[in-house]
Amino acid sequence: MGVEMRYTARMKIKADLVVKNASQVFTSAGSPESPVVVEGGSVAVAGGLVAWVGKTERLADDVEVGPEAMVIDAAGGVVTPGFVDPHTHAVFAGSRPLEFEWRLSGRSYLDILADGGGILATVNAVRQADEDQLVRESLPRLDRMLEFGVTTCEVKSGYGLDVENELKLLRVARKLASLTPMRILPTFLGAHTFPPEFRDDHDKYVKLVIEEMLPAVVEEGLALACDVYVEKGVFDVDQAEQILRAATDSGLGIHVHAGQFVDLGGPEMAAGMGASSVDHLDVVSDEGLAAMARSGTVAVMLPGAAVSLGQKPPRVDRFLEAGVTLALATDLNPGTSYTENLPLMAFLSVTSMGLPCSAALLAITRHAAKAVGLKEPEGTLAPGARADLLIHDVSDWREILYHFGVTHVSKVLIKGKPVAGPRAS
Amino acid sequence: MGVEMRYTARMKIKADLVVKNASQVFTSAGSPESPVVVEGGSVAVAGGLVAWVGKTERLADDVEVGPEAMVIDAAGGVVTPGFVDPHTHAVFAGSRPLEFEWRLSGRSYLDILADGGGILATVNAVRQADEDQLVRESLPRLDRMLEFGVTTCEVKSGYGLDVENELKLLRVARKLASLTPMRILPTFLGAHTFPPEFRDDHDKYVKLVIEEMLPAVVEEGLALACDVYVEKGVFDVDQAEQILRAATDSGLGIHVHAGQFVDLGGPEMAAGMGASSVDHLDVVSDEGLAAMARSGTVAVMLPGAAVSLGQKPPRVDRFLEAGVTLALATDLNPGTSYTENLPLMAFLSVTSMGLPCSAALLAITRHAAKAVGLKEPEGTLAPGARADLLIHDVSDWREILYHFGVTHVSKVLIKGKPVAGPRAS
Repeated sequence: MGVEMRYTARMKIKADLVVKNASQVFTSAGSPESPVVVEGGSVAVAGGLVAWVGKTERLADDVEVGPEAMVIDAAGGVVTPGFVDPHTHAVFAGSRPLEFEWRLSGRSYLDILADGGGILATVNAVRQADEDQLVRESLPRLDRMLEFGVTTCEVKSGYGLDVENELKLLRVARKLASLTPMRILPTFLGAHTFPPEFRDDHDKYVKLVIEEMLPAVVEEGLALACDVYVEKGVFDVDQAEQILRAATDSGLGIHVHAGQFVDLGGPEMAAGMGASSVDHLDVVSDEGLAAMARSGTVAVMLPGAAVSLGQKPPRVDRFLEAGVTLALATDLNPGTSYTENLPLMAFLSVTSMGLPCSAALLAITRHAAKAVGLKEPEGTLAPGARADLLIHDVSDWREILYHFGVTHVSKVLIKGKPVAGPRAS
Repeated sequence: MGVEMRYTARMKIKADLVVKNASQVFTSAGSPESPVVVEGGSVAVAGGLVAWVGKTERLADDVEVGPEAMVIDAAGGVVTPGFVDPHTHAVFAGSRPLEFEWRLSGRSYLDILADGGGILATVNAVRQADEDQLVRESLPRLDRMLEFGVTTCEVKSGYGLDVENELKLLRVARKLASLTPMRILPTFLGAHTFPPEFRDDHDKYVKLVIEEMLPAVVEEGLALACDVYVEKGVFDVDQAEQILRAATDSGLGIHVHAGQFVDLGGPEMAAGMGASSVDHLDVVSDEGLAAMARSGTVAVMLPGAAVSLGQKPPRVDRFLEAGVTLALATDLNPGTSYTENLPLMAFLSVTSMGLPCSAALLAITRHAAKAVGLKEPEGTLAPGARADLLIHDVSDWREILYHFGVTHVSKVLIKGKPVAGPRAS
């Protein structure tokens, strides 16, 4: 009864689209500990936004479905918000399959670098590729994401590492946004690593990022946020802070890669600056977690990277105890986590990291939306949220996790409109 | 040069189908340590069998492609043998998503059993389902397997646990075989667990399996092999041996589930009886491995089950040192490994278990074919093998593993004929 009250308006809502007869609507709304699941539910959409969620048996009473409205029968499937992948490097050229084999056979990272592997291999490929090639190689990745239910996707630059090529990557992201129904949220990651040209003068590269790249990115309106990779041997906390300060001064949101291998205090710095997310966090101190909990900074966990590197993903018990909001991402990239399968990350999080099942679905919807700086009720099916939603061909929402490695998505709606995806029926 | 000689006939071969212009043909043939990969290769098929594999530049010299022959352009993709999933429980009714959540939240198996969970929940669902329902629920699983490139699939009974329902499951498997282009290899697993009716008289159930179920299965020609689940609290080695002896006396092949939790000596017994595979083997003694190496019994590893149960899959170093042939399977079942994604098992095997990349592809082709009792050259693209082959939309065979969680299969051929699968283009 309490559940229905939240989703029932007093006067009839005029809908232009209805998804009805779901076995369950997993709304991702309500309390994070126990999100609202409407058994035998339906969703009404008006003007591209969620207008009503409730029991199918109440639909006729609450919602006016005119003759011009589209009615989609979920036929006993489960409806969820569209998935949000809050951390990807989806725009790149080439791939590094040999390096994958080398690494697993025990060759050291330095040895692989010397053989032309590692991130700089992708930087070289990106610098040599034109925008058309990058679009051609990247679009199938977005199509695959959509097959797995991703309707909003963050995309980072970071394989250009000079003004021209960082701008090129972000222009490609903009072009891709015009070619896919997905919402693409571009992030400037000029500070992904130091390019070979600045091997001996890191501060000069930081200066280039702040004084040339960032202003050019902002000038062209190419990014919503800025990210820095804080790690031993890459950007230190001071350098990151300078870059992120310039980004916030320019009105961008901020994210930080931190704690993939070594904890340098990146989470405390990022939380202090109001970052919307800190990502990776395979190692993080209690102080870092406490700071993130205080600032509402989301921890974006990347189990695909840990598994690809032959490591066990970190347990999340300490994160939950500290009250940190958790999201999950694919980290889609050609080096350490080459996958578009976001629900698989949710499976790994419940089986290997200790995330409860409902928290895992929040981590790829509502909490992922928060991680990329979207405001509530985005990432949920509460009234007022953008009507990005999925119909899954399962009868219980847990099957999205438990029946793993595959997609259950039979229909995708974005802004309240059915998407003709590769698997759309 | 050596490679080409193996695959080049002296006289022109008359082909009725050619797959040409692959970036690589990963044949799975040749030495298991270093299987033959033909760079810039093509495959010719005659009469449903592989007739020739070689460099595309030699195609015109070696193969006569008549005007009636079908020519498929692999367009720089990778060609591999069709994948073989050597261990599935793909025919069942219902699903157990609540149990998945309970188990991960720490509830004990006995507690879950008491709440109606566990294998007996599926036994109840299967007993209540008719053949049509079982076909309707199981066929989409086979379709998904095919999307991931599985062209041969072993399917076990074992959720009936009485004469009528074990026969029902195997009849459903036969019906499914008529509805899919995949090759279905049915296995009788009446000895999956003890049904509630025989809780207090296990020996009487073993007698039922041997004296009633098995003869009925053989009489109707419903299975190619027999399997027993050897585990503490389930079938002991003596009971398993009695059942398997009866099976071999009836002309069936044999498999054994052993060492999922406790090593009871199942591998030694199975190897001694000439089993084609022993499956699970999360725990196994050196003696068990030595016996399997001597008898040529294949170890079928099931990383999906370990991961779903929150465990790390076992390392394979000892298996490789002992000279045991390794295969991988999904173990597709509604309790402990609900997935159709066989290439994902190969990814897990290289990242978590220590299998070299080429061995992982052998483990889902040639070695999986051996595990289910198929004779060489099945599971390879050597001349004479059934022309079950895949075109993958990647340019290096390692990408099938490294770019994980998704399918790269763009075309499936079975017996030399293109299959109109869900994703076939």
